Amino acid sequence: MRWWGWGEDGHDHPVPPAAEAMLARLCGMGSERRDAVPIERVTLPEPRLAASARELLAEIVGAGNLRDDRLARVTHAVGKSYPDLIRIRSGDGAGAPDAVVYPAGHDEVAAVLAACSAEGVAVVPFGGGTSVVGGVEALRGTHEAVIAVDLARVEGLVATDATALTATVRAGTTGPALERMLCQHGLMLGHLPQSFEFSTVGGWIAARSAGQASTGYGRVDERLIGLRCATPAGTLVARPVPASAAGPDLRQLVLGSEGALGVVTEATLAVSRVPAIQRFEGYALGSFAEGVDVLRRLEQAGAAPDVCRLSDEPETAFGIAAIGAAWMRHAFRGYLGARGVRAPCLAIFGFDGSERSVRRRSRRVRALLRRAGAVPLGERPGRQWAKSRFTTPYLRDELVTRGMLVDTLETATTWDRLDRLRGAVEAALRESLGARGTPPYVMCHVSHLYGSGASLYFTYFARQDAGAELEQWRAAKAAASAAIVAGGGTITHHHGIGVDHAPWLAAEAGELWVEVLRAAKRRLDPAGIMNPGKLIAVEAPEAGSAPG
Amino acid sequence: MRWWGWGEDGHDHPVPPAAEAMLARLCGMGSERRDAVPIERVTLPEPRLAASARELLAEIVGAGNLRDDRLARVTHAVGKSYPDLIRIRSGDGAGAPDAVVYPAGHDEVAAVLAACSAEGVAVVPFGGGTSVVGGVEALRGTHEAVIAVDLARVEGLVATDATALTATVRAGTTGPALERMLCQHGLMLGHLPQSFEFSTVGGWIAARSAGQASTGYGRVDERLIGLRCATPAGTLVARPVPASAAGPDLRQLVLGSEGALGVVTEATLAVSRVPAIQRFEGYALGSFAEGVDVLRRLEQAGAAPDVCRLSDEPETAFGIAAIGAAWMRHAFRGYLGARGVRAPCLAIFGFDGSERSVRRRSRRVRALLRRAGAVPLGERPGRQWAKSRFTTPYLRDELVTRGMLVDTLETATTWDRLDRLRGAVEAALRESLGARGTPPYVMCHVSHLYGSGASLYFTYFARQDAGAELEQWRAAKAAASAAIVAGGGTITHHHGIGVDHAPWLAAEAGELWVEVLRAAKRRLDPAGIMNPGKLIAVEAPEAGSAPG
Repeated sequence: MRWWGWGEDGHDHPVPPAAEAMLARLCGMGSERRDAVPIERVTLPEPRLAASARELLAEIVGAGNLRDDRLARVTHAVGKSYPDLIRIRSGDGAGAPDAVVYPAGHDEVAAVLAACSAEGVAVVPFGGGTSVVGGVEALRGTHEAVIAVDLARVEGLVATDATALTATVRAGTTGPALERMLCQHGLMLGHLPQSFEFSTVGGWIAARSAGQASTGYGRVDERLIGLRCATPAGTLVARPVPASAAGPDLRQLVLGSEGALGVVTEATLAVSRVPAIQRFEGYALGSFAEGVDVLRRLEQAGAAPDVCRLSDEPETAFGIAAIGAAWMRHAFRGYLGARGVRAPCLAIFGFDGSERSVRRRSRRVRALLRRAGAVPLGERPGRQWAKSRFTTPYLRDELVTRGMLVDTLETATTWDRLDRLRGAVEAALRESLGARGTPPYVMCHVSHLYGSGASLYFTYFARQDAGAELEQWRAAKAAASAAIVAGGGTITHHHGIGVDHAPWLAAEAGELWVEVLRAAKRRLDPAGIMNPGKLIAVEAPEAGSAPG
Repeated sequence: MRWWGWGEDGHDHPVPPAAEAMLARLCGMGSERRDAVPIERVTLPEPRLAASARELLAEIVGAGNLRDDRLARVTHAVGKSYPDLIRIRSGDGAGAPDAVVYPAGHDEVAAVLAACSAEGVAVVPFGGGTSVVGGVEALRGTHEAVIAVDLARVEGLVATDATALTATVRAGTTGPALERMLCQHGLMLGHLPQSFEFSTVGGWIAARSAGQASTGYGRVDERLIGLRCATPAGTLVARPVPASAAGPDLRQLVLGSEGALGVVTEATLAVSRVPAIQRFEGYALGSFAEGVDVLRRLEQAGAAPDVCRLSDEPETAFGIAAIGAAWMRHAFRGYLGARGVRAPCLAIFGFDGSERSVRRRSRRVRALLRRAGAVPLGERPGRQWAKSRFTTPYLRDELVTRGMLVDTLETATTWDRLDRLRGAVEAALRESLGARGTPPYVMCHVSHLYGSGASLYFTYFARQDAGAELEQWRAAKAAASAAIVAGGGTITHHHGIGVDHAPWLAAEAGELWVEVLRAAKRRLDPAGIMNPGKLIAVEAPEAGSAPG
């Protein structure tokens, strides 16, 4: 991945002209470009890894697998959040680790953690480096030195079982590598976060990833049946059993622990057989509220497709502009115009399965959608979405270059609160950004359904407040987060806590729960070396003692 | 509930003659009866609750809601496991609490815990008192006195939401009370453990209950979306959100915590609409292995009914004897006899839903079963099972009176290991009990399906080793537990840990995980008053310091 943005060079996504016109009109997007500084101009902190610690680590992983050159340090300095990009593009490499080590497997990871614990070196576990909440920035906490532990070499399939439909896989395996290997056994996981191309199994587990097809395939929490996690105090092993009542679930302490307790090195996942066919269907709905009602009915009737997405009016309009789909505009006019609908909402459904089961399920969906007055749009919108499902972050790079603030926010709440919460978050963003003279374009979609509720995913654009980019973002983020907490949402449905949401964890789950996490951390990481400042603050605000 | 057995007086279930003949022939069951001693002859420990603590507690709950009479103490002395019954029936009331308090709601529970924490009084949370793993015996740990906190008054529905399909309910509400109240709103939970008539919502959560319809309705873990839990250090609150990535899931620390961390006082659960119809269908299969294969296919195809049960050959034979169903014996003969099958396996499927959806789903099941050579038995076996689904524990009382050891064991493992594990556990029981000259009758069923595996539920009968009843049971339990751990099963799929499985928790999840639980307990329960000796031992074997 390139150090200043998403993905690899040569995969750029220019802003489509219609979208450009829209953002110029609504947010005042200009035409000037501001590229990232050259890598040589990124300011890096003086490396502070003691020679003795360096030697110890090189001995464990092999000299060639310890890197402290500029490129290694810069590419491990930040994740891929908007504030991360703003800082690194401008040459601020303060978050760079002193070194990056690449252990070869569980035992080397465990040895690295033991060595760092003994030497007082902070450790940032690094999978794909795609965190958008500050999860991989190399903070030192109270320690002199900090290293990134990159899991790139801890990869590959360990075993599959076609009867139990399970696969055991090493944690550094990326999405595409995993699906390629499973495919050779006729299996698939079907876990497709937007970061799929680069993120890893261990990262999914550490951040409790949902995946775009979570409605059908389940969140990673629901697919994880066994794991191995190295901690400074030893290894946690959850045996692969389908369900248990043997006390609180160990897997659930590791899920969402974001490298603050240990490093997941191996996981056993419930997998599926590769479906015979995959089909998408698009529909236009008269309003977001109507669409939400349809999604709820589908899910509660057990009839929800594997992929379910509903864009609100602004996201539908932007989507049409971004893909330049004149045919879709035309498709909307007739029937919806007659109903007085000027701004429709696009719903996309994806079905995986046998020819027969897909036919049966999509027939049921169609009947329900028709009763809700939806206009069928055929397979094109879904196919278009599927083709570009991983490209939005590339587009973001281009927009940031063009002086735009682009960020995403997500939450989940119960069905009864969903539409109200959407309005509250939108208003909060509008107020915060409008007050600076940088009015935003805010759009939203629902993409993960549950019996009791669903997720909300917001994307917003605004002109950068030049010279105060981070303050502008921070104010908008705080306003949206406050609206989420006040509206009964979770502070994050699938991005995780990292640094950005850490102040909000106690608001959601209570200070006592944070204290329990801290107690668990003290037991597993007595020296407090694991990803300091992520998930839970290093110091308890009310207790005087730092862990370790 | 009566103090010496299951349920209420007047609901006795005499042993059916055919079952009696079977047990006499196979296990040497005799005809003599040994009833429980009269309650006056139960030996109770001298009450040790200090007058000051007693006064404090009476002040919190009201004098009438603190009881230390004989009946109150005896009914809270043990749960409903076989060793519990053996002890209490013989007059051993060593497990009785010094007093029982009945707080009225969350605040009173919290105040009771604070008072007990300050006074050093151990607390045993008590819901229905139906634990079969020693979860409610009033152990003192390192404390002088111990009380039971009975949740009977913390009951009732707080709120329902027909859009989000959620219900908020107080933790002491029993199964029938909950379903009755939900029914008035057209809703139901569908959580039906065998203890349903007496067990409570809080107990289900504390012990991670599965419920007989877990294949369709999900385990209680999957239904819990919000909770309130009083601990000595304060209250844990999980906001009701459908899903989150905000760090490790707080709900999952409380699920399975068995009163060792705190007392669940309120829960928000995902509920369902009351189905229009409920239908059962029975099938006879040629062997257990064939049946397991069918269940696996159904579950992995997403076609599993809400209730799925498969009895092995011995359980099918015993079931026919117990219900005296001559018609079923006849039904088996023709087709299965022709296939050379002498001992069939009974499968029961239950479908909830609309007339149409039940028809569609059962058609799919029928097609798959027919391909597996199963013989359809119509609705009768399922209806019979549903009618008597909660009665087995009554039958146990009668058998214990008749000098029989009757116990159940359960586990879960991946599909590939299921049949092998069943054989290993059966062999372990046979060997342990056979060595004493009390050969057992062991039977097993599968009743909870997951994509990657299923549960195994064993029932076994043997003649009591008179004078050494507990040693006999302990040896059999240890042998079966060792076989379960060695065979890749979980030590408990839905009964919980309590006292009986506590020695096996580390074997399953590792000593480090037990240490993490201990650290969490120290934070929430610094004085170590919560249900000492349950889930985790009071003292760390390798650390010298007791909690608190």
